[in-house]
Amino acid sequence: MKKLLTIIAAMSVALTAFGQIIETHTLHSNVLGVDQNYNVYLPAGYNPANHYPLIVLLHGLSDDYTAWQDRGRVDWVANELIESGECVPFVILMPNAGNADIHAYPNGYFNVPGWSYEDFFFKELLPAVEAKFNCGGSKGQRAIMGLSMGGGGSVVYAQHHPDIFSSCYAMSGWLDNEKREVWADVPEGSKFPATSNSVADNSAIKYVKKATPETLERLKTVKWFVDCGDDDFILYLSLDFYRAMRDAGVPAQLRVRDGVHNWEYWHLSLRWALPFASRNFSI
Amino acid sequence: MKKLLTIIAAMSVALTAFGQIIETHTLHSNVLGVDQNYNVYLPAGYNPANHYPLIVLLHGLSDDYTAWQDRGRVDWVANELIESGECVPFVILMPNAGNADIHAYPNGYFNVPGWSYEDFFFKELLPAVEAKFNCGGSKGQRAIMGLSMGGGGSVVYAQHHPDIFSSCYAMSGWLDNEKREVWADVPEGSKFPATSNSVADNSAIKYVKKATPETLERLKTVKWFVDCGDDDFILYLSLDFYRAMRDAGVPAQLRVRDGVHNWEYWHLSLRWALPFASRNFSI
Amino acid sequence: MKKLLTIIAAMSVALTAFGQIIETHTLHSNVLGVDQNYNVYLPAGYNPANHYPLIVLLHGLSDDYTAWQDRGRVDWVANELIESGECVPFVILMPNAGNADIHAYPNGYFNVPGWSYEDFFFKELLPAVEAKFNCGGSKGQRAIMGLSMGGGGSVVYAQHHPDIFSSCYAMSGWLDNEKREVWADVPEGSKFPATSNSVADNSAIKYVKKATPETLERLKTVKWFVDCGDDDFILYLSLDFYRAMRDAGVPAQLRVRDGVHNWEYWHLSLRWALPFASRNFSI
Amino acid sequence: MKKLLTIIAAMSVALTAFGQIIETHTLHSNVLGVDQNYNVYLPAGYNPANHYPLIVLLHGLSDDYTAWQDRGRVDWVANELIESGECVPFVILMPNAGNADIHAYPNGYFNVPGWSYEDFFFKELLPAVEAKFNCGGSKGQRAIMGLSMGGGGSVVYAQHHPDIFSSCYAMSGWLDNEKREVWADVPEGSKFPATSNSVADNSAIKYVKKATPETLERLKTVKWFVDCGDDDFILYLSLDFYRAMRDAGVPAQLRVRDGVHNWEYWHLSLRWALPFASRNFSI
Repeated sequence: MKKLLTIIAAMSVALTAFGQIIETHTLHSNVLGVDQNYNVYLPAGYNPANHYPLIVLLHGLSDDYTAWQDRGRVDWVANELIESGECVPFVILMPNAGNADIHAYPNGYFNVPGWSYEDFFFKELLPAVEAKFNCGGSKGQRAIMGLSMGGGGSVVYAQHHPDIFSSCYAMSGWLDNEKREVWADVPEGSKFPATSNSVADNSAIKYVKKATPETLERLKTVKWFVDCGDDDFILYLSLDFYRAMRDAGVPAQLRVRDGVHNWEYWHLSLRWALPFASRNFSI
Repeated sequence: MKKLLTIIAAMSVALTAFGQIIETHTLHSNVLGVDQNYNVYLPAGYNPANHYPLIVLLHGLSDDYTAWQDRGRVDWVANELIESGECVPFVILMPNAGNADIHAYPNGYFNVPGWSYEDFFFKELLPAVEAKFNCGGSKGQRAIMGLSMGGGGSVVYAQHHPDIFSSCYAMSGWLDNEKREVWADVPEGSKFPATSNSVADNSAIKYVKKATPETLERLKTVKWFVDCGDDDFILYLSLDFYRAMRDAGVPAQLRVRDGVHNWEYWHLSLRWALPFASRNFSI
Repeated sequence: MKKLLTIIAAMSVALTAFGQIIETHTLHSNVLGVDQNYNVYLPAGYNPANHYPLIVLLHGLSDDYTAWQDRGRVDWVANELIESGECVPFVILMPNAGNADIHAYPNGYFNVPGWSYEDFFFKELLPAVEAKFNCGGSKGQRAIMGLSMGGGGSVVYAQHHPDIFSSCYAMSGWLDNEKREVWADVPEGSKFPATSNSVADNSAIKYVKKATPETLERLKTVKWFVDCGDDDFILYLSLDFYRAMRDAGVPAQLRVRDGVHNWEYWHLSLRWALPFASRNFSI
Repeated sequence: MKKLLTIIAAMSVALTAFGQIIETHTLHSNVLGVDQNYNVYLPAGYNPANHYPLIVLLHGLSDDYTAWQDRGRVDWVANELIESGECVPFVILMPNAGNADIHAYPNGYFNVPGWSYEDFFFKELLPAVEAKFNCGGSKGQRAIMGLSMGGGGSVVYAQHHPDIFSSCYAMSGWLDNEKREVWADVPEGSKFPATSNSVADNSAIKYVKKATPETLERLKTVKWFVDCGDDDFILYLSLDFYRAMRDAGVPAQLRVRDGVHNWEYWHLSLRWALPFASRNFSI
């Protein structure tokens, strides 16, 4: 055989090639005392000799670091938007804040007793990934976004560190958890109560309402985007967060499209979120 | 334990419940001499006592009847559009025109020597599915659509049977194959040449160019939609088909969005294709 | 000269022909004691021998019956959507609830002492227009929509008469006016306080919150759509109305796009509003 | 009276304030021997001490320099996109290539005997506007776009000067005029034949087909976007131009949406065109 089948080959390339630029890596965390996996998306033609902006992309409660690729096909959207020029080439970091063995470790992005995830993220994971992939490194070169628990995580991380993120995009964000009682009857020994309480303790809404003028000025240095489906069971959290921001004079975008708390919504959200991050990058 | 975790439960429902209304069935074909699988999408609350319109949804060359669900997540889009009222509830039939063992059977939607797929579809599959699921049954209650090889199949089926489909939506359609030479070096015994030739022999473009005034009048009873990505390697086929239709005076819609020949494009196309089919249904 | 310039002619047709199907008419109102103008949009090929569904389209506070055409170019959008099949052909009624001489007559859609506009609309205008243009006539053949003061008017009219409208679409709705004090210093003799008070007295939000189960059941027979820009100065009214509806178990759509309280937003809203009305028509 | 009516005032600001940043100016042209008007759009907060990128926005055959504002409401779209951050602030130049007295001067963007418009544009207008408003000045700070005759003008200007425009966006472009015969019977003395012939003589399609490898390399330094409605009477010109570019290996975007040759289409096109120009600006 001398030739390949032209059409079959073209189709195969179109259908499969993009999947190859998602890589899984493992970092040992001294803070957590365990190894932690993460995925990275590297744009077509990625060259470690060049520097890239970084998007941190956080998953939700019942998922882990594989979800944005395996369920959300972030590569499809990122490839298309970069190829057409709607986005600059960037690296995407997808950390792991989900744990199959819920009795062993809590889920979530915040510090809870015995599991200082936020410390791990900022002290270990972010620096390691930025060094390894030559990306991020400054406020103008970093964005953060996520869905549900990761939407809440994105906002709280950007609230805690407005000096290091240029933009923050929250999809269907779990931005508060005022009523903790739903967690009363979980299996003994489960770490879910820790997760639940950590969201309440890190309420993104209360953070804005209680912010000092100085804090509000710092929040204004970040570009904020709130996005939630009209039939989402936690829509009110997004609306309340947006109102808190607006009432406090911190500019933010709000979008409500048709949809519920599912991957169809989040997959589509990427079409707004990635260009939003991209155009807010600066040197 | 007395209670479920409210949030976890809600998330799980949102994330998983929609997948359960895709069913796989098998029909023995006397025409083909083999069993043939197919998938059906049944809308939420499907009740066999009620009658539903039918959408026939055709897959592409390197896929089979599972692709629209497993790779294209048709259920996500259909569920959302029906729930919001943008579409009426319908049944979707996803036939099988792909075969893993390419040495045994050809792919494709047309009759080739020894494999009369088009006969199977119209004489066996369509009647069986309509009877089994109480759907379709008349021109006003049937639509057809598909991608790539299935885009071509959709158009040709509607050309051959304008009296039984109310609308036809072709995504990235393989609408002609004038140069047959790319198939010269396939493995001995493969059925790919039969597929390739069948597309050339059933050119949707030539069909329009050669149509008599009477045929054109019949084509005008179908609503046509042509949709292809600007970077698709077979874009020109869609453009040429649209021009042939327009030059012949047969109304058709044309859309070119950003994109290539991949599932990101086709998944998004469903947002136009399903409402298009839905609003062209009639009683 | 024997021929027209083909291109010039084609351009002129494309650019100007659509504007001709907006008609202005006048109806004498016994209820109000004055003549009242209104505009109607008649679809291409309008034939009074055929029956058409009717869309009632309400203007905002500082406008009158000419605004949807002259500022919002409703004809452009309606023509395109009907031509492409996204909408069925319909008649649009654009009533007048604005008055240049604010000392003589109040603005607004509600009954105020000496100016029973709501009575005029339902007892005189709607029947006259439906008879004159052979349109509407039943719940399944009527929709209502509007912007700002007209968004509030649409919702309240559909609340008062859920039996005669199939759908209601509110853009940037003035849905309540709890604080009446802003009206204290208007020019003596102005009718603005009457308008202001009428919106407070006809709060669409309080109507839902106070509704009996029977009333809620009647509201569920209407399809509701709430649409407002994220930077609109009265966004919270739309959010509060949607929450009241959702909390009461009455299905409604919510959309928040980018934008403020202006014609760019409303012109774009027509692309959702008109198809929403169209697909909720029934015979 | 001590207070303004809050709501009325807010509405008035929202509705009218944006119109004030369109300015009309006049430049005497030594090349043409007449005064020439032009409009400029200045972004909110425009400050002549700052430098801005420049978008050149060309009108169509039966219009003049006022059309993009008066009929296309470019200010609405530009204001919104800049405010939301989808576009950087820019100046828009709207030149005049239409003349009410067609017996006196030809329309169009090209040099014809006795009317060297292209020379006027590049030698007089562009330098004068860039100096006066502190904008443009380099390839990375200039974009060009237009509709119909102005779509063709945009492409040809960028073909002639790929070194000075970073991007070019053609809407419904009059990109060729192969058949000149339609102009045979125009009124004696009219300048329309000159316009018609100038489009044929400056065919954007033939320019690409005949381009040398060196020319093609220069064309690749510009970002190209082709956009036309599927029912536009000159759609084929856009399709042929795109195919010529693709066949020649010059990357270009193509979009075909629903629509005809009218202002609804072009107004919506601005939502793609302005961000496209904006993200292709560089320093």
